[in-house]
Amino acid sequence: MIALARAPATVANLGPGLDVLGLALAGEGDRVRAEPSEHPGVTIRSSGHPELPLDPTRNTAGIAAMSVLRRAGAQGAPGARGTTCGVVLAVTKGVPLSGGQGGSAASAAAAAVAVNAVLGGRLGANDLLEACLEAETAVAGRHADNLGAALLGGIVLVRSLDPLDVVRLPVPERLVVVIAEPDQRLETAEARALLPERVDRALAVHQAAQVGALVAALASGDLALLGRAIDDRIAEPVRAPRLIGFAEAKAAALGAGALACSISGSGPAAFALVERGGAGERVAEAMAAAYRSRGVACRARVAEIDRAGARLEET
Amino acid sequence: MIALARAPATVANLGPGLDVLGLALAGEGDRVRAEPSEHPGVTIRSSGHPELPLDPTRNTAGIAAMSVLRRAGAQGAPGARGTTCGVVLAVTKGVPLSGGQGGSAASAAAAAVAVNAVLGGRLGANDLLEACLEAETAVAGRHADNLGAALLGGIVLVRSLDPLDVVRLPVPERLVVVIAEPDQRLETAEARALLPERVDRALAVHQAAQVGALVAALASGDLALLGRAIDDRIAEPVRAPRLIGFAEAKAAALGAGALACSISGSGPAAFALVERGGAGERVAEAMAAAYRSRGVACRARVAEIDRAGARLEET
Repeated sequence: MIALARAPATVANLGPGLDVLGLALAGEGDRVRAEPSEHPGVTIRSSGHPELPLDPTRNTAGIAAMSVLRRAGAQGAPGARGTTCGVVLAVTKGVPLSGGQGGSAASAAAAAVAVNAVLGGRLGANDLLEACLEAETAVAGRHADNLGAALLGGIVLVRSLDPLDVVRLPVPERLVVVIAEPDQRLETAEARALLPERVDRALAVHQAAQVGALVAALASGDLALLGRAIDDRIAEPVRAPRLIGFAEAKAAALGAGALACSISGSGPAAFALVERGGAGERVAEAMAAAYRSRGVACRARVAEIDRAGARLEET
Repeated sequence: MIALARAPATVANLGPGLDVLGLALAGEGDRVRAEPSEHPGVTIRSSGHPELPLDPTRNTAGIAAMSVLRRAGAQGAPGARGTTCGVVLAVTKGVPLSGGQGGSAASAAAAAVAVNAVLGGRLGANDLLEACLEAETAVAGRHADNLGAALLGGIVLVRSLDPLDVVRLPVPERLVVVIAEPDQRLETAEARALLPERVDRALAVHQAAQVGALVAALASGDLALLGRAIDDRIAEPVRAPRLIGFAEAKAAALGAGALACSISGSGPAAFALVERGGAGERVAEAMAAAYRSRGVACRARVAEIDRAGARLEET
């Protein structure tokens, strides 16, 4: 069969949850079309963007697809009768490149789900997550916050990578997200290099308390507590100075009624959390205007939380 | 009026939640009897233990009581008509001294509630918490994990000390605790001095993930996840080597069916979490036997979680 899968953009970290928390954004996302081939392994027909390689060993969708094939035991003798021994992928990018919205994770998740469907759905969610983690590790570093959200949807917490242990968290019905996309680039590798290797114990304690409070707030629906818990003192302080307009956008978001605002993943995108029916459009406009006031073009939109994660679509 | 208040023993940290998480234990706890006096300030008639000072400025119950008087504005002109200008306290200790079960917090919480009742209940929970934090800071360091649990009951998360922001977490009905009291002493100050001043960022991320997972597990009632989340890599690794028999007791607890086991507060007490109706007594016996096998006398008991916190009793 031919399969088409889509996976959402994601906001990693959610402030204090560096490498630990991820949230899936409703919207276009990335799409991967996979069809079986007698040619062994993975061939990428279109990568979705001129900057993305067609070489499957250097493309996140390709690496995830290869891992799914291997895990499903589908790389049998080339051409053996009745065996799907390879796949051809076509990627359509809806998530911006290097935008801090989990583009590599979305492509990997969509590819994993599409290829798994081509193979008859042999792998479960955990195997797919492991396959995607191989891809993410190769292109963006070993973390599963974007991936977990892209694959499972909603808001996830990555308790452990070894063994992989990803927890779906409750999502308050009243919670919506504003995502601002300033016209900037900050490569993931560069953004990670800014992080301190060591932190004060008191800071680690603070950060753990915020993650705990954030989870408690999601579970109880206490949006005011959720806002207070988004207080990141590890990543935001070192990344914000590299993101022109972020400080102004954050102040504008909070001034316009956002519950909280921080950097989406490693940036440059910024996110704000808002209560439904409240300040969404106003916060989006305020953030975009703040970036523009610093000379940075910016699109901002109100987004629902994608609760389904990566899924198949009609081909 | 004369008031008698009781506050429970508490397990701080709960593994990964150093200075952040606290759990209240059903049982005797500490009792403080307060009666109004025309003598200004706080007088301690009995401290509950020969090692505890009668000087109210050096006694946790005394410091909390002084703070409640001050906050309630009750330190008016000595002897002014109709004014309660002081209190006399009598403390009865049920929580072991330097045992890692929040003895100083229990006495402070009981004193604060009793004195507040003598004054007609003028202060709310947050003021009482602030008053107790003054006491805890003076005798045990500035943290509110024991205090929050002793005052509010259940399981609490301290999101922030400045401003004070303590969150009550859901408590699964099926959760019970085993508390082991080895015949050891480890002073709080000494136990704190063992903690590293700085930690690797990766370790901070791990610890935050465990606190988040622990809160998620409490909210969803997923006791297996709760067990996995109790994986402390900051305090337990440096304190365990100082606590003869702890390693053996932990292995014995897990072997006997405990969900998790770690040090209670800064020790020497150890706690295990177990599912109700399951392994409680077996875990308690296994832990006590493990300490004894290392030559350390030990009492261990199964304890319910105290859901009420500090409260008034009939005088």
